[in-house]
Amino acid sequence: MKRILIAKTPALIGKTVKLAGWVNTRRDHGKLIFVDLRDRSGMIQMVIIPDKKEAYETAKNIRSEFVIEIEGRVKERPGSAVNEKIPTGGVEIEVEKMKILAGTVGELPVDISEDDLNLHLDTLLNYRVLTLRNKKVKSIFRVYSEIIRSYAEIMKKDGFVEIKTPKILSSATEGGANFFKIKYFEKEAFLAQSPQFYKQAGVGIFERVFEIGTVFRAEPHYTTRHVNEFTGLDAEMGFIESMRDVMRKLEKTVFYVLESVRKKCAKELELYNAEIPPVSKIPRLKLADALEILEKNYGKKLETIDIDPEGERMIGEWAKKEYNSDFVFLTHYPANIRPFYAMPSKDARFTESFDLLFRGVEIATGGQRIHNYSQLVENIKKHKLNPDDFEHYLDIFKYGMPPHGGWGLGSERVVQKLLGLKSIKEAVLFPRDVKRLTP
Amino acid sequence: MKRILIAKTPALIGKTVKLAGWVNTRRDHGKLIFVDLRDRSGMIQMVIIPDKKEAYETAKNIRSEFVIEIEGRVKERPGSAVNEKIPTGGVEIEVEKMKILAGTVGELPVDISEDDLNLHLDTLLNYRVLTLRNKKVKSIFRVYSEIIRSYAEIMKKDGFVEIKTPKILSSATEGGANFFKIKYFEKEAFLAQSPQFYKQAGVGIFERVFEIGTVFRAEPHYTTRHVNEFTGLDAEMGFIESMRDVMRKLEKTVFYVLESVRKKCAKELELYNAEIPPVSKIPRLKLADALEILEKNYGKKLETIDIDPEGERMIGEWAKKEYNSDFVFLTHYPANIRPFYAMPSKDARFTESFDLLFRGVEIATGGQRIHNYSQLVENIKKHKLNPDDFEHYLDIFKYGMPPHGGWGLGSERVVQKLLGLKSIKEAVLFPRDVKRLTP
Repeated sequence: MKRILIAKTPALIGKTVKLAGWVNTRRDHGKLIFVDLRDRSGMIQMVIIPDKKEAYETAKNIRSEFVIEIEGRVKERPGSAVNEKIPTGGVEIEVEKMKILAGTVGELPVDISEDDLNLHLDTLLNYRVLTLRNKKVKSIFRVYSEIIRSYAEIMKKDGFVEIKTPKILSSATEGGANFFKIKYFEKEAFLAQSPQFYKQAGVGIFERVFEIGTVFRAEPHYTTRHVNEFTGLDAEMGFIESMRDVMRKLEKTVFYVLESVRKKCAKELELYNAEIPPVSKIPRLKLADALEILEKNYGKKLETIDIDPEGERMIGEWAKKEYNSDFVFLTHYPANIRPFYAMPSKDARFTESFDLLFRGVEIATGGQRIHNYSQLVENIKKHKLNPDDFEHYLDIFKYGMPPHGGWGLGSERVVQKLLGLKSIKEAVLFPRDVKRLTP
Repeated sequence: MKRILIAKTPALIGKTVKLAGWVNTRRDHGKLIFVDLRDRSGMIQMVIIPDKKEAYETAKNIRSEFVIEIEGRVKERPGSAVNEKIPTGGVEIEVEKMKILAGTVGELPVDISEDDLNLHLDTLLNYRVLTLRNKKVKSIFRVYSEIIRSYAEIMKKDGFVEIKTPKILSSATEGGANFFKIKYFEKEAFLAQSPQFYKQAGVGIFERVFEIGTVFRAEPHYTTRHVNEFTGLDAEMGFIESMRDVMRKLEKTVFYVLESVRKKCAKELELYNAEIPPVSKIPRLKLADALEILEKNYGKKLETIDIDPEGERMIGEWAKKEYNSDFVFLTHYPANIRPFYAMPSKDARFTESFDLLFRGVEIATGGQRIHNYSQLVENIKKHKLNPDDFEHYLDIFKYGMPPHGGWGLGSERVVQKLLGLKSIKEAVLFPRDVKRLTP
């Protein structure tokens, strides 16, 4: 007999089937043994009666997380209406044969059969290979997977070519901070903290490129918004008229991704009581105006023309109140806090750059880039950097580059804010932070 | 007027359009200037006549790789039938206005307008940001992009969940060779040379997982088959009966990917005279039998029970001759040349593992893994490794793991062998090898 998935059982009442999966829980009621069996498609209750001797003896030995294979008859579950949350709630299995495929070793450090684990973050992460099996925890990564799938889909629909760019770099560009150093044979090298230069080269080749790739940041942060290794959703597009073309494309992309999640992940969203923001025009606000709002409406005065996480949270609130929008674009960041490749605005103290906030947290950074070789060389100098250190990057602009721009979107932050997770680390399968390199 | 793509022009004869792109070539014939304009959709010939004074003066200054924007009328091309290879071969543009968006700086180091660049590999790679703009070179990465798209598609159709696993590891597992060392804040860490352990953990969570991710190998190789950073197409699946389930799934996946490339990349395949192997049953051969064939049919005797690249090439030839197959599975590699996690065969000198060869080169490695905790601990010891060094990995097996297996498939090797590229480095946008860290 061939194994079938649990989700298929409601259509097979009266039939004998083979199932396999993990023991979620076992409960003994008088002489009956009840086992909730879990596979990738769902969960089902099984009953083992003493009459089925061999199965019964086996069942007496199984515990949570044992891996078993069973044969049994699908029955309507007595006294229970079909429960929409559990598709198999209306049926159960009367077990005829049972085989243990794998046991467990020692006591399980946490009980993952609960609806809500409610664990301390460190415990959740220390026992990650186990806690990820919990239905609610696991569902985060089904949403995550749909986000990267639909991101690639909309990018391709819009003519972007998927590229993979090197993560090992010869030099720590963009100023040198936040890079991990690596020993590369006899040389020193660095881990890429963004695919910026290479995706710009990609514009010269394909006009429009995107990358879903690992990003490494040696930032010594201890926050709920930072991990040191994450998956960036990058894009870069040529022949733009202004950064507004980039913002429009990002807006379209984000809503496409969210609508895909809405369609494909209804069950997962429900577990988190998560609401998908409706498609709308995202309000746009110059950073300088945002700072004025912070001062006027929130009594928050910032020393320099920049915004901090608290300010972002407040502007998020403000956008919700004023525009009923979960998103807001902040634009025209000062040149001195943006990288040298950011296109200066007409007022050259500012740049044609933006951040996109989602529920008060920056999820994307982007803008128009300088495409003229001489202007770029000048701007590198203005940033007190040495153009010689950017030889290979500058080559791109010697060979003719159209006006272009793009963004870097943090996939994990999207999931975090969408599901309302307290820490971004919950949105990474095996997160890396300053102290955490395991599991 | 809004810019349109060149590919749209054949449907717009008589209309005035705006185009933008790169100057592929400029040719002056008497008083006429001819320019081949290139954008992401194709190439078109433009004529600039002296009557259009401003455009003509501008055209006199443009050179290859200048980025320009033009307005002009779409005309049937005199005396030229529609050429199927160039969709716009039947039309040309009579330019009315021309604007330079960006020039070039200095002489172009190579002429990329040729059909075939015929450059030394080093030249091809040194001027990569330019050479990648060549039509034929660029087409490699359209094929590449379709390979990773269709890989994700078939995996999802088959119930695999896409995951992203950490690339920074606390320890150099699997024996310690071939790892790049990194400085991780105050600690030492390593770059992942495969997602092996994490995808196995993924089986415990989702039963079936796949990853498209960067793989780092500190191998000091100088070959046409090795780069030190590549993109692995990994998969791992639970509840298998034997490694044959894994081989069948890999076979299905590879042919699905190839059929997608056949459908979507006809033009690119034509540039390389590349033929897609038809869907067929891939022959399977025990490694020991392959070695016998090598000795009997090719007079090649290997010292140990292992195969070398020359042997793989010969077995590739043999499979083509005997089975008319571009693929061949080699199975049952000896335990001493496979990692400790490989499932031993009944004859424990061998393992339930395989390599998949494509046109004589190994493109994938896979097999069934040990899923029993005690057996795994024993096997770690047998490989003269210390189980304490695998604490977090071993945790996976304490919590109940089904029989499982999977593969790692090298995306770049698939492209290389499919298009008949001499070096794998041609199949990487910006390759990394022992000596090459730039561009």
